[in-house]
Amino acid sequence: MSEKPKYVEKETKRVDVWRYKKYMCKAKIIDIKTGKRIVLLNSKDATAHDIYLGYRTELKLGKKNTIVIVDTSNEMVKPGEVGIYSDAAEELGAKNGDTIEILHMNRPESIEYIKKKMDGKTLTPTEISSIVNEIMDGRLNDVETAAWVSGVYINGMSDDEIIALADATVKSGDKLDLGKHPVVDKHCAGGVSGNRTTMIVVPIIAASGIYIPKTSSRAITSASGTADTMEVLSDVTFSVDELKDIALKARGAMVWGGGMKLAPVDDKLIRIRNPLSLDPEGMLLASILGKKKCVGAEYVIVDLPVGRGAKINDEARAKELAKHFIKIGTEMGMKIEALITDGAEPIGNGIGPALECRDVLQVLEGTGPEDLKHKSCMMAGKLLELCGKASVGQGHGIALKLLENGKALAKMKEIIELQGGNPKVKSDSMPIGEYTYDVKSQVDGQIFHIDNKVISKIARLAGAPFDKGAGIYLHCLRGDSIRKGNNLFTIHAESEPKLGFAIKALENLEPIEMRKMILGTMR
Amino acid sequence: MSEKPKYVEKETKRVDVWRYKKYMCKAKIIDIKTGKRIVLLNSKDATAHDIYLGYRTELKLGKKNTIVIVDTSNEMVKPGEVGIYSDAAEELGAKNGDTIEILHMNRPESIEYIKKKMDGKTLTPTEISSIVNEIMDGRLNDVETAAWVSGVYINGMSDDEIIALADATVKSGDKLDLGKHPVVDKHCAGGVSGNRTTMIVVPIIAASGIYIPKTSSRAITSASGTADTMEVLSDVTFSVDELKDIALKARGAMVWGGGMKLAPVDDKLIRIRNPLSLDPEGMLLASILGKKKCVGAEYVIVDLPVGRGAKINDEARAKELAKHFIKIGTEMGMKIEALITDGAEPIGNGIGPALECRDVLQVLEGTGPEDLKHKSCMMAGKLLELCGKASVGQGHGIALKLLENGKALAKMKEIIELQGGNPKVKSDSMPIGEYTYDVKSQVDGQIFHIDNKVISKIARLAGAPFDKGAGIYLHCLRGDSIRKGNNLFTIHAESEPKLGFAIKALENLEPIEMRKMILGTMR
Repeated sequence: MSEKPKYVEKETKRVDVWRYKKYMCKAKIIDIKTGKRIVLLNSKDATAHDIYLGYRTELKLGKKNTIVIVDTSNEMVKPGEVGIYSDAAEELGAKNGDTIEILHMNRPESIEYIKKKMDGKTLTPTEISSIVNEIMDGRLNDVETAAWVSGVYINGMSDDEIIALADATVKSGDKLDLGKHPVVDKHCAGGVSGNRTTMIVVPIIAASGIYIPKTSSRAITSASGTADTMEVLSDVTFSVDELKDIALKARGAMVWGGGMKLAPVDDKLIRIRNPLSLDPEGMLLASILGKKKCVGAEYVIVDLPVGRGAKINDEARAKELAKHFIKIGTEMGMKIEALITDGAEPIGNGIGPALECRDVLQVLEGTGPEDLKHKSCMMAGKLLELCGKASVGQGHGIALKLLENGKALAKMKEIIELQGGNPKVKSDSMPIGEYTYDVKSQVDGQIFHIDNKVISKIARLAGAPFDKGAGIYLHCLRGDSIRKGNNLFTIHAESEPKLGFAIKALENLEPIEMRKMILGTMR
Repeated sequence: MSEKPKYVEKETKRVDVWRYKKYMCKAKIIDIKTGKRIVLLNSKDATAHDIYLGYRTELKLGKKNTIVIVDTSNEMVKPGEVGIYSDAAEELGAKNGDTIEILHMNRPESIEYIKKKMDGKTLTPTEISSIVNEIMDGRLNDVETAAWVSGVYINGMSDDEIIALADATVKSGDKLDLGKHPVVDKHCAGGVSGNRTTMIVVPIIAASGIYIPKTSSRAITSASGTADTMEVLSDVTFSVDELKDIALKARGAMVWGGGMKLAPVDDKLIRIRNPLSLDPEGMLLASILGKKKCVGAEYVIVDLPVGRGAKINDEARAKELAKHFIKIGTEMGMKIEALITDGAEPIGNGIGPALECRDVLQVLEGTGPEDLKHKSCMMAGKLLELCGKASVGQGHGIALKLLENGKALAKMKEIIELQGGNPKVKSDSMPIGEYTYDVKSQVDGQIFHIDNKVISKIARLAGAPFDKGAGIYLHCLRGDSIRKGNNLFTIHAESEPKLGFAIKALENLEPIEMRKMILGTMR
């Protein structure tokens, strides 16, 4: 072995070889529906085969296969057995005693791209789409998905990355194609209690002859989402085909976005973003504009409420975000107008599903809170101008007319009926919670601030949004002068204990702040 | 209400009020040990009470309480019931039909600090300790913990933050206090196959009269960790008190760190860091130095292997890391010496628990691989010099003498016996896997590189570290000139299927690279 070394040219090939590692187990069906794809392996068995708690593994039976998460146990399954909960068993068609092949799953390729984003690098559209696809396939676990959200939150995304993410979001699910034009849509950044403009804008726009197949969300931390509120009047859970039927008939619809497979990857991310309230701007834009694209929207109004207690605190930030919405939306082929609105205080008087419905129906009937009516007509007017149905400056007038001549109310009733509700519904028949508590002012003074988050919290403690009748009715607005003993607001609940939670919380909360000089102290 | 507004001075107080929300359920004990604190609520019931899948909730029964994660089901539990798996039931002392109080848990306070780190800000020691405590209490879920790791990975930590994290890590568990001095320790950054210097350094140091109560880890992705390899010779799972007894008797011990409550927060983070191989430097330093502090170490040698295929790729990076170890260690009151070592290739011939043990025992018996022997004596020598037992330049000689005069072997046997093993063990009685496969060179040439990661992968496919006899025996070293047909390495396994996995993987892997010009191509 002492002669001159030789050169041996051979290209290096890197393939994931864990795949070769597999073993056979006898199925033990566990008759419990978990809603998750989990299997139980005997702890010792699993270790011997290099499989650990929380690992993703592939199960094969004949030609069927499924990806599952491994749980381990010594009590439930013996060595040589695999415990399969009924969900995965159905998917595999597995029966007790079947021989199941257990394979190591290849490391999901998108893990590399998540790491790349965490390292501050820019991802290609293919890499982004790989991440979205592997989230959809259940190949990425919670920890990996959390790292993805964290990476995007901290390092941000370029406009190209955002567009790629929006595209991948659109491709992750179904699409609505009405085959009609124009299709318009609206979006609100949220955070303002009682802000149910959608339920007035949609009937106005549909009454004008424009298509607006609106999907909305349910509340996550607020007292009610548009879908929760609309649900007081009709069903909101429909398939894409059903939404199409409704929208083709009435030109408008108001359904729950989570009930169909439009941009479903977004629903998977909510559980991850929620605990830390992580809303990375890029993900927000991709998610919102992706969803608008999914329903075929060509013209979109974006409502960005700004102010103390709103999601966006200052106008400069709102303007930046507005520009970003317009830029990304335009590149995606949509025409966007962003409205920066006053979001410091709740809109309307009612907060909570039924109480909000009452405000909405009152506005459509010709009465109701002025602020809700005005904002809704402003937004509908802007939409009419944006899509060319009204010339600039004329939109608000047209919208107001459709409201005042009863056409919007008639349209609302048509939509309610198509969505399975009672078209004869009136504002005075709303199922408002009968357990009530009046909160009175303990001082003379002027209303300085009504806090959206605190109001939401109280409404939620009282049972909203699950208890449709629970919530808050505000008797006053910012700027009102108040006498000691005047009613500030009333809490409504459907049960005495829940009313009790809300009342008790008042000891530590300040939902309505009177005018004062010292806003806080530090030491 | 038209008079002049008044000022009302009142301080704002913010308290978490979700706590008020609670409800009562009848316990339904589910006789399954899950190892986790999970309860099942009826889906509809949960939603009605504003509790969702994955939420943390507190259960109360009399004066006992526990924090659990909520799972939901319609099949397993009826409305008004709470399904409690046997683990949590025992903790609460709950029986079927007991009335359990279910409370919303306050939002963990450390979530705010995790967000603060993600926003690029610096945390105070109190904030860091709050995060560590809430991880330990099970108050933070996987998603939140992943966000913490991601935030630290991307934004880094200041030295003060690292020290605070190390302190919190130490406080999270038990401590070893031998009441003797000096106590020394060693740490290796890892990634080098077969690098079992600990099992030679510990007996040498203990034989010299210095205390070295060594805790080691098990393999995560490699073929074997020191704890896995030592386990061939004796038990490695001991309590802190048992470790104290062994170390006071023999002055040295080699136990599994994960088996006791030394810095246990670290074990909780491994499951989070592992899937993405996230090893933020700050966490790494806090974890390693925290563990050394826990065993009372005053003098510590840190081995930083560098090279192609090692964890650290270049020397500049290794030097930076070395400085950081020294700085943080010094501030924590320890004397640190960092050794930058050649980590490009495996050390010794055996890779896998029993094969490594054979190398170690051979070195102690006076034969064995030269590289392993030399590196171990170098490290032991440095430790002796660092703690003042040897003057500078004399350490290596003293270590070599303790090896050659058999004192280190005698000490090893003493430790093996104290840890419940057979002190008469010899290198030729190791349980090497009997299913073997020789890999021969297909060309004439010179060994250019032996890849640690690929070697580990093959050993692991063959069954290591669970199958103690599985692994690889290397017949050649970097630089050796090889003839076509010469043995490069032998794969050992304890079963034919596992040997098969390893052999099949060879089709796609290049564990040993012959000298070549083109190292890779791109297009």
